[in-house]
Amino acid sequence: MRPYSGKLDIKHGLVNMSHGSGGRAMAQLIDQIFMFHFDNELLRQQNDQAAFNVPAGRMVISTDAHVISPLFFPGGDIGSLSVHGTINDVCMSGAKPLYLSAAFILEEGFPLSKLEQIVISMAKASREAGVPIVTGDTKVVEKGNGDGVFITTTGVGVVPDSINISGERACIGDVIILSGSIGDHGMAVLSSRENLSFETTLQSDSAALHRLVKRMVEVAPDIHCLRDPTRGGLATTLNELALQSSVGMLLEESSIPVKAAVTGACELLGLDPLYVANEGKLICICDAADADALIAAMQADPLGRDAAIIGTVVADDHHMVQMQTSFGGSRIVDWLASEQLPRIC
Amino acid sequence: MRPYSGKLDIKHGLVNMSHGSGGRAMAQLIDQIFMFHFDNELLRQQNDQAAFNVPAGRMVISTDAHVISPLFFPGGDIGSLSVHGTINDVCMSGAKPLYLSAAFILEEGFPLSKLEQIVISMAKASREAGVPIVTGDTKVVEKGNGDGVFITTTGVGVVPDSINISGERACIGDVIILSGSIGDHGMAVLSSRENLSFETTLQSDSAALHRLVKRMVEVAPDIHCLRDPTRGGLATTLNELALQSSVGMLLEESSIPVKAAVTGACELLGLDPLYVANEGKLICICDAADADALIAAMQADPLGRDAAIIGTVVADDHHMVQMQTSFGGSRIVDWLASEQLPRIC
Repeated sequence: MRPYSGKLDIKHGLVNMSHGSGGRAMAQLIDQIFMFHFDNELLRQQNDQAAFNVPAGRMVISTDAHVISPLFFPGGDIGSLSVHGTINDVCMSGAKPLYLSAAFILEEGFPLSKLEQIVISMAKASREAGVPIVTGDTKVVEKGNGDGVFITTTGVGVVPDSINISGERACIGDVIILSGSIGDHGMAVLSSRENLSFETTLQSDSAALHRLVKRMVEVAPDIHCLRDPTRGGLATTLNELALQSSVGMLLEESSIPVKAAVTGACELLGLDPLYVANEGKLICICDAADADALIAAMQADPLGRDAAIIGTVVADDHHMVQMQTSFGGSRIVDWLASEQLPRIC
Repeated sequence: MRPYSGKLDIKHGLVNMSHGSGGRAMAQLIDQIFMFHFDNELLRQQNDQAAFNVPAGRMVISTDAHVISPLFFPGGDIGSLSVHGTINDVCMSGAKPLYLSAAFILEEGFPLSKLEQIVISMAKASREAGVPIVTGDTKVVEKGNGDGVFITTTGVGVVPDSINISGERACIGDVIILSGSIGDHGMAVLSSRENLSFETTLQSDSAALHRLVKRMVEVAPDIHCLRDPTRGGLATTLNELALQSSVGMLLEESSIPVKAAVTGACELLGLDPLYVANEGKLICICDAADADALIAAMQADPLGRDAAIIGTVVADDHHMVQMQTSFGGSRIVDWLASEQLPRIC
């Protein structure tokens, strides 16, 4: 017997302040939307925390708040993104992601039907990834103090023994591998914003990369660095790694895959794809001796088909990222200086 | 060498969209506010996830989004609350909390000085509790799409062997212990909202309960249920436990401590302290044979000084919570039906 009667009117209902109260209305929302779609054994414990068994060893934790606008975009929505984004942050350590938590901040007046659509998408992404959402929280803020829905996911995972992937491990002579084309997510989201539309079909690359990473650490356990180039794009992520490792980097522009639709949209808007966010790509830095095995393993995975070496790690006291351009020149690939695309994830 | 020059103008500066960009401005904000105050070895790894060693065994994960309004209130602020709230959810399983993550959603235009004040308070709460913030995330939304700052914290902890605390373990004949007075947090927050002030000094009870819980499980490893009565108050939390355990409960009103200032403020506003949120109290349900040892252990802790038995678990097919009133009558203590105090945590 539940503390409320009947079914939530998901088709016509709106989020109201009582859905965040801790009382009957919240119990109904949680049961009929969150528990119903996320359903799994740990969540069914219905305590304020989820308990699970772990082997002794190294664990990782990572968290991401998702505030993407619009909530739905070509290739995904805030629900699938919030699952993929945190799985990716966890597995960039080489870890196997185990569990996710999800905290929702809902704006009063948000349609329950859209909330359910987002939750269904989240549940699907979580199930496909094999990483269940085991605990959560729901808060409601007054209309005008939020923006539909914000979702913070946190993930935990276990790192296999002998794996030591970290941002400060790039060495001079290492090669830089990119798993596929850049700029897809950012341009897909931008294309779906008000007053902007492109003739081409831009799709977000939002995807969970943990299975690709698993293949990679199996063939090359001594990968030095892994990172997903999200906000700030490839350029900013490489600069972060160069700084952490106290090295420079030299890229080859012609080896960096960019889809024609992304190039076209970027040219139209005066954007540089090197700075546009990705949500299903990774950068791998490894010893040159490991590169062939890694590229082969990556290309055998659907999310790494276009994997390629895009540059090398070089000595540079100023930790700069430089690029040989397709026209034979050279340019500095600097940090993103301002806000290029707000609320992209 | 960092990718920005100079110091953030914390005294006069405001959050702007570039602080969420992933670029230079975000790196500066993270270094000079978050990293500076939260400083610890794991955070200094500066990867997108934090790695730590765990022994084999049972772990727990819990998450809470904090949207409290106002951000500062007597006895705390959103920073200390976001640390205490999640530590409490983790330790209500009997676990020792290990690490926290923190994800910030900032509204454009929010003063950096207030953000720093909140971060300092969070850092202090985390240090006092001995539970470091090891990873995080920062997002910025446009003015009017947020409300200053929202903080989602997630905690992980390890459960000692042989502890099995869970909401469905209340048994007929068990006693219900409350750690102290109720309603303090909710009434303190309410008192600090616009247009409401009381002559008395109401203070939030916001506190981390993990050391109290440690004392408790040491003297009584077979505690059946523990839960902190936050949103919805004591009444709603007891109803949740009654439902999960398929039992009824019988409370003794005269044994439930309520401070005179809280009673007074509640009377003035037509509120029932049984439904008002707490942030530093716990309910413990245990075998009657364990009660004396537990009460003694609790009273020896500053956060359990007023611990008392407030009722017993009884058979009831309708899983109702009933109460003997101070006037000799009896009333049903139902679930919170509507929103009593929005954005209380």
